[in-house]
Amino acid sequence: CIEALLAEAAEPGVPARPCPCPLPSGDTALSRLVRRLLSARRSLDLCLFSFSCPQLARAVQLLHRRGVRVRLVTDAQYMGLHGSQIGRLRHAGIQVRHDQHSGYMHHKFAIVDRRMLITGSLNWTTQAIQSNRENVLVVEDAEYVKAFQDEFERIWEEYNPANYSFFSQKQ
Amino acid sequence: CIEALLAEAAEPGVPARPCPCPLPSGDTALSRLVRRLLSARRSLDLCLFSFSCPQLARAVQLLHRRGVRVRLVTDAQYMGLHGSQIGRLRHAGIQVRHDQHSGYMHHKFAIVDRRMLITGSLNWTTQAIQSNRENVLVVEDAEYVKAFQDEFERIWEEYNPANYSFFSQKQ
Repeated sequence: CIEALLAEAAEPGVPARPCPCPLPSGDTALSRLVRRLLSARRSLDLCLFSFSCPQLARAVQLLHRRGVRVRLVTDAQYMGLHGSQIGRLRHAGIQVRHDQHSGYMHHKFAIVDRRMLITGSLNWTTQAIQSNRENVLVVEDAEYVKAFQDEFERIWEEYNPANYSFFSQKQ
Repeated sequence: CIEALLAEAAEPGVPARPCPCPLPSGDTALSRLVRRLLSARRSLDLCLFSFSCPQLARAVQLLHRRGVRVRLVTDAQYMGLHGSQIGRLRHAGIQVRHDQHSGYMHHKFAIVDRRMLITGSLNWTTQAIQSNRENVLVVEDAEYVKAFQDEFERIWEEYNPANYSFFSQKQ
């Protein structure tokens, strides 16, 4: 199950104990997603409307502890919702930026090592993973990866807190 | 603007009148999406969580009137929301099917003539188009198109009203 996958990633070399939990074991869409994320060696750029899935948050924290450079952009309204993992990730020292608009930062993509794009309809929530009909595309074509990487860098700069203006700039 | 684009598509050959409306003119993300949809000659398969954008609904209706085979799958909870275009499209004679679950049918993709996939984070709502940060991928690689076409056919069959069970099947 995902627990075993995360335990193995946290302590490589320690033999995996058989897990008695009732979660689906073997190859699931979630385990494939987690494996792709855990393949990161240098960087993980996340651009996520909603992030409440604890297993995915643990995978991200694990990468951060391993020294992978994690950057996370999220939506200002959704990051405060019950169950959001954003506070926990910030607390762990991961850099998070968010929009300042009434519209949603509605992207749901991740880029691993600037070479693998993971995108689709899936918000990183337990509800979406357990109950919804969703799609996730994993793409390594440089053309697609570059378009999303460029969008990430644009947003990352645009949401830089150093650029916030708290008062009207009118003369 | 989009109005001029739809008018031109509805009455090809009639010279486009200059449009006095305040909508953005020229090349916008919405006009590119509408142009891609209007390129359909045989079929348009739509799998949309939420559909409230009137301009996109008009483009779909136009294709239906032109004899393009339009099939639409949507989410049971969202299709009843204020502003939904689903009722109007059904009224126009377009075949619509929806899920029967508490989870969401959360896909947001379209397939034009079984060869062009349009997918991403964008729900087909005015709010998303006007206010959100979104992505739309347009892909013609057969491998990706096939994966989404197969998912569409699976869902289309699964949500066939002939398969509804209104009462418990317990013995």
